[in-house]
Amino acid sequence: MRLGGVGASPGIAIARALVVVRRPLQAPYAVLTDEAQVAAEVERFNEAVAATEAELNAAKADLSGGLAEYAHIIDAHLLILRDNMISQRAASYISQRRINAEWALSLAVQEAQSAFQRIKDEYIRSRFADVDYVTNQVMRHLIGHQTDDIARIRDKVIVVAHDLSPADTAQMDLDWVLGFATDMGGPTSHTAIMAQARAIPAVVGCQRASRVVQNGDLIIIDGGEGLLIINPDEETLHLYRERQEAYELYSQEVLAQAGQDARTADGVRVHVVANIEMGAEAGGVAGYGAEGIGLYRTEFFYINKRQLPTEQELLEDFQDVARRMGDLPVTIRTLDIGGDKFAHSVDLAPEANPALGLRAIRFCLQERGLFKTQLRAILRASSMGRMRIMFPMISGLGELRKARAIVEDVMTELDHRGLAFDRQIKVGIMVEVPSAVMVADHLARHADFFSIGTNDLIQYALAIDRVNEYVAHLYQPLHPAVLRMIDRVVRAGHANGIPVAMCGEMAGDPRAVPLLLGLGLDELSMNAMTIPRVKQVARRTDLGLWRAVAQEALTLPTASDVAELINRELNDNFPDIFGAAASEKR
Amino acid sequence: MRLGGVGASPGIAIARALVVVRRPLQAPYAVLTDEAQVAAEVERFNEAVAATEAELNAAKADLSGGLAEYAHIIDAHLLILRDNMISQRAASYISQRRINAEWALSLAVQEAQSAFQRIKDEYIRSRFADVDYVTNQVMRHLIGHQTDDIARIRDKVIVVAHDLSPADTAQMDLDWVLGFATDMGGPTSHTAIMAQARAIPAVVGCQRASRVVQNGDLIIIDGGEGLLIINPDEETLHLYRERQEAYELYSQEVLAQAGQDARTADGVRVHVVANIEMGAEAGGVAGYGAEGIGLYRTEFFYINKRQLPTEQELLEDFQDVARRMGDLPVTIRTLDIGGDKFAHSVDLAPEANPALGLRAIRFCLQERGLFKTQLRAILRASSMGRMRIMFPMISGLGELRKARAIVEDVMTELDHRGLAFDRQIKVGIMVEVPSAVMVADHLARHADFFSIGTNDLIQYALAIDRVNEYVAHLYQPLHPAVLRMIDRVVRAGHANGIPVAMCGEMAGDPRAVPLLLGLGLDELSMNAMTIPRVKQVARRTDLGLWRAVAQEALTLPTASDVAELINRELNDNFPDIFGAAASEKR
Repeated sequence: MRLGGVGASPGIAIARALVVVRRPLQAPYAVLTDEAQVAAEVERFNEAVAATEAELNAAKADLSGGLAEYAHIIDAHLLILRDNMISQRAASYISQRRINAEWALSLAVQEAQSAFQRIKDEYIRSRFADVDYVTNQVMRHLIGHQTDDIARIRDKVIVVAHDLSPADTAQMDLDWVLGFATDMGGPTSHTAIMAQARAIPAVVGCQRASRVVQNGDLIIIDGGEGLLIINPDEETLHLYRERQEAYELYSQEVLAQAGQDARTADGVRVHVVANIEMGAEAGGVAGYGAEGIGLYRTEFFYINKRQLPTEQELLEDFQDVARRMGDLPVTIRTLDIGGDKFAHSVDLAPEANPALGLRAIRFCLQERGLFKTQLRAILRASSMGRMRIMFPMISGLGELRKARAIVEDVMTELDHRGLAFDRQIKVGIMVEVPSAVMVADHLARHADFFSIGTNDLIQYALAIDRVNEYVAHLYQPLHPAVLRMIDRVVRAGHANGIPVAMCGEMAGDPRAVPLLLGLGLDELSMNAMTIPRVKQVARRTDLGLWRAVAQEALTLPTASDVAELINRELNDNFPDIFGAAASEKR
Repeated sequence: MRLGGVGASPGIAIARALVVVRRPLQAPYAVLTDEAQVAAEVERFNEAVAATEAELNAAKADLSGGLAEYAHIIDAHLLILRDNMISQRAASYISQRRINAEWALSLAVQEAQSAFQRIKDEYIRSRFADVDYVTNQVMRHLIGHQTDDIARIRDKVIVVAHDLSPADTAQMDLDWVLGFATDMGGPTSHTAIMAQARAIPAVVGCQRASRVVQNGDLIIIDGGEGLLIINPDEETLHLYRERQEAYELYSQEVLAQAGQDARTADGVRVHVVANIEMGAEAGGVAGYGAEGIGLYRTEFFYINKRQLPTEQELLEDFQDVARRMGDLPVTIRTLDIGGDKFAHSVDLAPEANPALGLRAIRFCLQERGLFKTQLRAILRASSMGRMRIMFPMISGLGELRKARAIVEDVMTELDHRGLAFDRQIKVGIMVEVPSAVMVADHLARHADFFSIGTNDLIQYALAIDRVNEYVAHLYQPLHPAVLRMIDRVVRAGHANGIPVAMCGEMAGDPRAVPLLLGLGLDELSMNAMTIPRVKQVARRTDLGLWRAVAQEALTLPTASDVAELINRELNDNFPDIFGAAASEKR
């Protein structure tokens, strides 16, 4: 039996399953009748928080050597536990509503969940999983539930669970745990990032895995294809043993070449850069061959914080990234969220369609103080490194002009303060709103670079929310309309002499890379772990051929026609990389 | 002092203000302790419902002569009262949760409100106002609150209120009430439709009007421009008295010509057709000069009903419309809502961004039984009239092919049943998703007509939810990206020999009409009341000139550049119609 999921960390693992059962915890409900009970309940709640904190600190201390880079993920959990509104609010509910700690906590979590659901950015939205994990740990302490100790596993197994936290993943002993599969999670979850960092094959989002797989079943997981196979026959087992061996040889080879430039078979240089979300990550990306930062998401300074970050805090972080990247470019996306994400302004009325609401550059043009603080920090850091400013969600030239005028204002202000910055700093935009595609010619005259954000662009172009399970199947990166939009943006950029990058998930999909290069993209930005493979595919791409393939794809009527063309060409031209998988998958 | 609002019904009124105070009713909360109390409370609730029903029936009986056509609006209120889930649910809450009637009703209304907020179609979503009105009447009876009796006004006044219902509007005695202004409401509200039907000047959505205006203030309302002027100076008063006179002469003249064809100054025929939402409306549209139905929204058969409509019910309604329209075309849009709108399936999980969710053709391709029932009724009615089928929210050729295949299936089935239908029936699509614009060339080969739905197209193209007050100002019909999309669709349609219509609100804006004709649109569909004015503008349009204006507009960088060009040209070429207003407004 096969279960499809999402490939979270590549590689193949074959072993017996260990099913970790973690049923959702049910919060009991009780009413408190006097002040003494209230005081005792608050105390009990604080103890549970403290116990959770101790566990997280212990997990963090366990992170050895190369993994110390990832301590920031556990730091984020510690922040959620202490700094955000959940614990505080739960504690106040206990005393105000005179209810027990478990119920108070569950109310606070529900509120946080609905706040997260209103967020535009899928990536940020998926971060609710972290809140859920941390609060579950607190709940477990309150209820007195045993924690499954994944760290104590002493059998060669593949862990199958409803969900795992980054801390669980960090604590897995790789001598024993060969991989994992979970029901929940997506490709950008912290758990996936941690699995990639530890190079553990992992499949997430398998939906029913933890109910279908029995303890002791022989299972195969293919973390590249996002596949879980339960009790395979001999033939399949043999096939995957061969693939496993081939994959291991292949990844050693690919990683060994990651540091070299990517030039296509016909000698055209392709820039491959990294997406990061925290400054600390910048230290690790060079090891994967990143030639710069193509997208630094800056939202974590703002989400669930009680106070806005100061210019100094931002400056120190940006300077740190600049130092780590040396003379490589660092593209900082200005704030991409809306007012509903600020813990200090949770009382904003909920929006019916937050993806179509007040956020990103729209929000920044309204909240100029906050925007200028961020711009000042980027500009000041630009005296130490090759910073670039990138505005998200630009829908037309009016917005771009307004945003650039504010950059000018900030420059004048820094001049007056006698502070150094790079006056030639590149200022570009994300192209992720369909209207920006339609007026890309005008925008190209006022931007120094374009970066196509396919995640949002595809959603708006097809009117699809891809995290909505009812319509996720309609999210088609190979829809001819999407390719035509990319083509239009590339042509407008090049006609005006500016480079065109892509920083959506599509850019990091090795199967899409030859087509994207054929469409003329100059730079691809992605999760660092994907870079070696993308560079390898880029090196093997015959650009002349793929320009012709792209031109053909632009004439095709449907996404499946395009997929068929691309699969055929990948199979013919990269038989060793995509051949088998391509023929097997379709 | 001037307050801007939304012009709901054109015309100018000048009179003293009568401010009707209607504070939102506060529902008291009480817990019932025994079965006797529960029974009494259910009884009290049923009495309030019955009293409301009696009032609605009385209001309906008051509708005289020409207004009888509009009885269906009050019928809709009666249906909400009796047929929908609100009363039923409230009654069951009383007994299940043992709470008082007011609180039970407010819970049921809240649930209905959140269901409505998840609807994609702004028009349908705004219909919550009707639910709100009806339930407020019930609440008023429960609380024992006096109803303001607008029917008893015996002074020459302009009514200023927080909100008014269609029933209020229907009962106004036009000898005394010269117009009204409300804080709430939009251009497509039932109250606006009723005001247009009664030809009462009205401005809605004035936000603060009922708090700012004092009883007895001299006020002017301009229902065309959406303007409320409080205590004007002598000069303004004089200006508006002149305008009022001019407007009255003008509207008599325009209406007198409504029945004639619209041919541009250079002799090109323009088709002007009506949008309707209920079959009964078809009887009235010819009086405004409609040359057919360009958009029959069929959602009312489905919303808040406990059962899906039968084929027979739909057939009878469609046949009725066909009969009323004679040999004029009737374009029926297939279901444009999602599963969350069906009262019998309210348990669907709420979607985070319903505008990007499972609805319209996506929903119908999944719920084929429901879709086929609707198609059967349309096809069977096509044996009696010129029906046309229109699919909403098509995003690419794959969907269109699937939908057409289902039409073929239904035709085969009708053949087997020996039932008559028009085998040559025209099958077209709404172009309202940006991806459809990008692949309009492919779609044009498989559709018999296009109808551009600007309301949604603009929202998706600009990533704006225009009912979201935080971003409504970014909703720009004249954004160059929007014009380029319209141009692309028109060119793709004409290259393949199919007509291109527009049925969004933009099509009914007289100021946009010359530009739209210059862009090459063949047909414009709108609220019937707007048709006479649009026909008049079309007749006065020099198409050669406006083709050149449109070409120039397509090269401009921003919406304000386009607005400036259009205003200048309108002012130069239609000085009597747009001159003064154009120069005053900018």
